[in-house]
Amino acid sequence: MGSSVKQLAVLGSTGSIGQQTLEVARALPDKFHIVGLAAGKNINLLAEQINEFKPRFVYYQDEDKQARLASTTYEILSLEDIAHHPQIDTVVIATSGKSGLSPTLAAAKAGKRICLANKESLVMAGEIITSEARLNAAQILPIDSEHSAIWQCLEGETQPAAKLILTASGGPFHGYSSAQLSEVTVKQALKHPSWQMGRKVTIDSATLMNKGLEVIEAHWLFNMPFEDIEVVIHPQSIVHSMVEFMDGSIKAQLSYPDMRLPIQYALSYPERLANRQLPTLDWGRINSLTFEPPDFDTFTCLKLAIMAGKRGGTYPAVLCAADEVAAELFLSQRIKFIDIAKLVESVLEEHQAISHPTIEEIITADTWAREKVRRLVTRDSPC
Amino acid sequence: MGSSVKQLAVLGSTGSIGQQTLEVARALPDKFHIVGLAAGKNINLLAEQINEFKPRFVYYQDEDKQARLASTTYEILSLEDIAHHPQIDTVVIATSGKSGLSPTLAAAKAGKRICLANKESLVMAGEIITSEARLNAAQILPIDSEHSAIWQCLEGETQPAAKLILTASGGPFHGYSSAQLSEVTVKQALKHPSWQMGRKVTIDSATLMNKGLEVIEAHWLFNMPFEDIEVVIHPQSIVHSMVEFMDGSIKAQLSYPDMRLPIQYALSYPERLANRQLPTLDWGRINSLTFEPPDFDTFTCLKLAIMAGKRGGTYPAVLCAADEVAAELFLSQRIKFIDIAKLVESVLEEHQAISHPTIEEIITADTWAREKVRRLVTRDSPC
Repeated sequence: MGSSVKQLAVLGSTGSIGQQTLEVARALPDKFHIVGLAAGKNINLLAEQINEFKPRFVYYQDEDKQARLASTTYEILSLEDIAHHPQIDTVVIATSGKSGLSPTLAAAKAGKRICLANKESLVMAGEIITSEARLNAAQILPIDSEHSAIWQCLEGETQPAAKLILTASGGPFHGYSSAQLSEVTVKQALKHPSWQMGRKVTIDSATLMNKGLEVIEAHWLFNMPFEDIEVVIHPQSIVHSMVEFMDGSIKAQLSYPDMRLPIQYALSYPERLANRQLPTLDWGRINSLTFEPPDFDTFTCLKLAIMAGKRGGTYPAVLCAADEVAAELFLSQRIKFIDIAKLVESVLEEHQAISHPTIEEIITADTWAREKVRRLVTRDSPC
Repeated sequence: MGSSVKQLAVLGSTGSIGQQTLEVARALPDKFHIVGLAAGKNINLLAEQINEFKPRFVYYQDEDKQARLASTTYEILSLEDIAHHPQIDTVVIATSGKSGLSPTLAAAKAGKRICLANKESLVMAGEIITSEARLNAAQILPIDSEHSAIWQCLEGETQPAAKLILTASGGPFHGYSSAQLSEVTVKQALKHPSWQMGRKVTIDSATLMNKGLEVIEAHWLFNMPFEDIEVVIHPQSIVHSMVEFMDGSIKAQLSYPDMRLPIQYALSYPERLANRQLPTLDWGRINSLTFEPPDFDTFTCLKLAIMAGKRGGTYPAVLCAADEVAAELFLSQRIKFIDIAKLVESVLEEHQAISHPTIEEIITADTWAREKVRRLVTRDSPC
């Protein structure tokens, strides 16, 4: 395929990553052709995108509103049908939460090139998805800036890495004590110091759950034992992650925090494309890059996630589901910030895990965990 | 050849890089076999090395003393004869100054794998050496930490780099004003804050001439226009250099400052080898990595070197030669620290350059420049 035009489906096109994917496609129209668009909530933006990119396939979550999109110029398909459609070679999975699981699996089975921004699918079903991808020669190319950094650093190396070093900004509450953390508001939690992202991932960044999910994601993407994945706090978000090799040499990937770079890298790989809209680092402006170990005792979500990852089976799916519901409850001000970790911990403790689960068992565990969080919250505060 | 035992010659085996090369060979005896050793001054250390490594070929600069090394177990050969000997596949050029030129050229013509620590040979005759290497399928693998970093970052990339970013510690006088610089002593200049190196290169690090020579070296090694080579001061010497790609992504290579890593990488390439003697970075100990632009007005050697590199022809050879003599004069306390730059500048100004010179013309320019510096100093201070 090399430099031919790539036939893209963007699932989750109205979210933060989806919109930035379309920005990249807009900047490089001779490289990418948008064949499919799928969105979950923002029908007006989806209509605009359809108008601009003229896709052949469209999905919209709300079936009632879907009628408003009716047209003779494109077909309405399900997420999965878009993900494995023969007219599409590259599927960008930019949906949030567990809705990414099913289309990722469909794309893996169909041997597609999968540009993966949705970390939940690998966290929930990493074993199944990576094995389906191997079986069907699908490529999973990470869009997360950390995993893109690791992937770039591994490029051309002929031997396995000795260690992956995931950097974390530390979020808006970096340096806070547990006591300070118990008082933070939704507004504060949504103010990320270095990245502009969706609401759920911004909350996950504040709890460091996001970094924990990324550790699990890195485990599956790079086939790396949890013991050899380190997390380092780096508040400037310039070094996006690093790889240590067996001779002690480390490679790092750096750029200003701008998701369009890892998106474009995943889309254009193995080529790199010049794109004037992407900023380049100015070494006259970067004074200092700082690093420190994470505070696992205060930000317990990170510890919980790594523990769930190590235990494996249905634990990571339960972690993910419990966190998703807990984060929503925090966003709607039903619980306190520190309750997110407490709820996730309680749910993990009560979970009867299954090793090497099927997709159905993963979905069941997910449903169980969501219910469990809701019941725990209803029991504690009958509002 | 892959993982077979490499047949090594170490030219300059008693110097700093030479000794560290032998340390690496000692730590990995099933990977490297020392077939040739050559030294210029330290006959006692050379005798010890011969005793330990039992090379087949030996060179010693001082012909009178050479008799002391007479033996039936090895042959005394010239530097060039060792460099192109058929029993040797890998030649480590760790001699200092212009003595590296002739064996590097011999190794290039013989299609050897050249592990190059001697920057002067590429600075003086980059055009000739790189073209001979291309013609004879010789590999030039850099040992300088900066160039090794760039090479590691380029590995696996299929497109040319957009920019090379060479880091510089700034040396012991980083932050000094011109006035402060005029008062510094030899003892101060020899105290490098982060690297343990030979005396000449330590002085070159203090004037930033070393970084200027490295810019020229990078130009030849990576076929990169001078306009796309940037120098950034990074006092901690952890980031050894960086590469910016056309999409704005930057890769960096990091490690504690320890020359054994780039030496081993050049020796073992394309393999990386585990070596417990090499330290790994501790992210709990690295607090801050800082970066700032160099002060070209105070450290004029850097500016002079880049200018000489851009002008090309015999200018870089003249720069190198004038700097070597001036640094020696400073080390023997005949001139002040700031006179090094002044002398180099004067000599460059008076030089009648030749474009695309032959090796003989380069040697002539070198001799002229050395004479010129000595005459300038004798004229100014008839001591």
